[in-house]
Amino acid sequence: MPAMRYDVAAIGNAIVDVIARCDDAFLARHGAAKGGMRLIDTQTATELYAAMGPGTELSGGSAANTVVGIASFGARAAFIGKVADDQLGQIFAHDIRAAGVAFATRPRAGAEPTARCLILVTPDGERTMNTFLGVSPKLDDADVDPDTIRAAGIVYLEGYLFDQPAAKAAFHRAADLAKAAGRKVALTLSDGFCVDRHRAEFLAFIRGKADILLANEKEIMALYEAKSFEDALRRAQQDVPLAALTRSAKGSLIVAGDRSVTVPAAPVAKVADTTGAGDLYAAGFLFGLASDRDLETCGHLGSLAAAEIISHIGARPEVNLADLARLRGLL
Amino acid sequence: MPAMRYDVAAIGNAIVDVIARCDDAFLARHGAAKGGMRLIDTQTATELYAAMGPGTELSGGSAANTVVGIASFGARAAFIGKVADDQLGQIFAHDIRAAGVAFATRPRAGAEPTARCLILVTPDGERTMNTFLGVSPKLDDADVDPDTIRAAGIVYLEGYLFDQPAAKAAFHRAADLAKAAGRKVALTLSDGFCVDRHRAEFLAFIRGKADILLANEKEIMALYEAKSFEDALRRAQQDVPLAALTRSAKGSLIVAGDRSVTVPAAPVAKVADTTGAGDLYAAGFLFGLASDRDLETCGHLGSLAAAEIISHIGARPEVNLADLARLRGLL
Repeated sequence: MPAMRYDVAAIGNAIVDVIARCDDAFLARHGAAKGGMRLIDTQTATELYAAMGPGTELSGGSAANTVVGIASFGARAAFIGKVADDQLGQIFAHDIRAAGVAFATRPRAGAEPTARCLILVTPDGERTMNTFLGVSPKLDDADVDPDTIRAAGIVYLEGYLFDQPAAKAAFHRAADLAKAAGRKVALTLSDGFCVDRHRAEFLAFIRGKADILLANEKEIMALYEAKSFEDALRRAQQDVPLAALTRSAKGSLIVAGDRSVTVPAAPVAKVADTTGAGDLYAAGFLFGLASDRDLETCGHLGSLAAAEIISHIGARPEVNLADLARLRGLL
Repeated sequence: MPAMRYDVAAIGNAIVDVIARCDDAFLARHGAAKGGMRLIDTQTATELYAAMGPGTELSGGSAANTVVGIASFGARAAFIGKVADDQLGQIFAHDIRAAGVAFATRPRAGAEPTARCLILVTPDGERTMNTFLGVSPKLDDADVDPDTIRAAGIVYLEGYLFDQPAAKAAFHRAADLAKAAGRKVALTLSDGFCVDRHRAEFLAFIRGKADILLANEKEIMALYEAKSFEDALRRAQQDVPLAALTRSAKGSLIVAGDRSVTVPAAPVAKVADTTGAGDLYAAGFLFGLASDRDLETCGHLGSLAAAEIISHIGARPEVNLADLARLRGLL
């Protein structure tokens, strides 16, 4: 087996978030389903951007946020994702590297710009995401560096990429490389609508290749078209060796075979912006696994990182997560 | 006299801020004088950006921040400044328009990018600015739309532009247009080092064309090479009809002929980032003048806006300043 240089290597969309506040009426006027993620085309992106308020730009992307969180806990992480050769691409690359994550995917020249996500945050802190993917889906097989994958203890894959055939192929290749090298494959379902669009493929991937599954309540119920969370949970238990299922304020449930562990959410004084809650739960959970902690501690680390991220605007941690975890007696 | 369509029209650098946290040692290592503003070239910008932590991008620019604040108070504002035809330029234009400010300066195509300011915020909340001006100094005479200037009650000019010959010429033209139309001309000194570089020209401009002067303690003392604030104050009193001089936590002193008004700073629970304190004081003060309030109220409006801006990261207000002022009984 090759030497392990990374605890986690992730493949996902490389996105810069553009965050603005709005009220519920604005979402309704612009046909955005509150709390969801939708893909938008150039025209919708232009119109929505023109209509929305002043923005704050921060690097984002679901799996990218997760590896930044993992690095903040002190582990070694790498990211594979596609940016364009433009200013937003430079911002994305700078930020992820400055956070200590290895990022070597070559930017792609051409007309398609770096992906951006127009994130509208309502007064209750809920985020509604409108993603213009730009160049991001152009990630393909050739971008999946075999050495990086083989050198990572866990390969973490972002479900959003199932929307893109070339990227999906890159996914499968990464999973096969990882398994051949004796590594673990983790998948996040990313979004209920994304699951609805690709249910059969998600199920085949989970049953055939995934060792670890991350999902929230809505996503896991969408995957199994289940009537209750408990139903979905039982199905997940049969399909994958380890699943961590998040339930917002109700915390998370971790199932591994016939064992299950319930972990409460960590307290938050005021929810400012829920963007990145799932991404950072995944960061804490995967960091815990990578450092051989028990499942309950893994869940608490996830809760801790999620609580930090929703206490402020943006999906990248504002404090060092290792320091925070030590402060709370988790490290 | 033409109809007044704007309370304030400002001319300044069009800048996107890139804000990151650092410690004092980082500033020392990179030769940045804490609390100051320095102009950096492409190479330094590239090196400093590569070395600094993950950033948050937010539109900035001193006079641009001021007019955004004025619009947030509910007054009509316009901005003249130069961006490139690039993504940061689009961000700047979007944000200032979304804040309700008229912005019609055409972006400039070519190799020079939109200006950015690498702002390093130390744990004490102090900001140290490293400005890469890019295309911004290419603002010239032709960009100063005479109709906009004549239609504004106050023309507000950013001292930083004295560093740029073409922009300085645009300044003089704007001031002459304003005076010919019976409007007021306001100037901010912007920065002590900028004053050192252009003392004679600043003095000539103030004595010949300015009706209103804004400066902080350091800047006004630099202007007059004064040994004490009181000395500088007396000189300002002779040179300009109205001056508002800010003194950080000590509040501000407003002098108009032989009258002087002392205004305390507004309380702030915790200083997060001092970027924009002077810009937003100017916003409150000029809004007060434009809406015919007494000098003491103008000063309190300035203190209020400055307190809001230093309570969070970034130099654009996070709340509606008119609402905030009403809450405090100032409107």
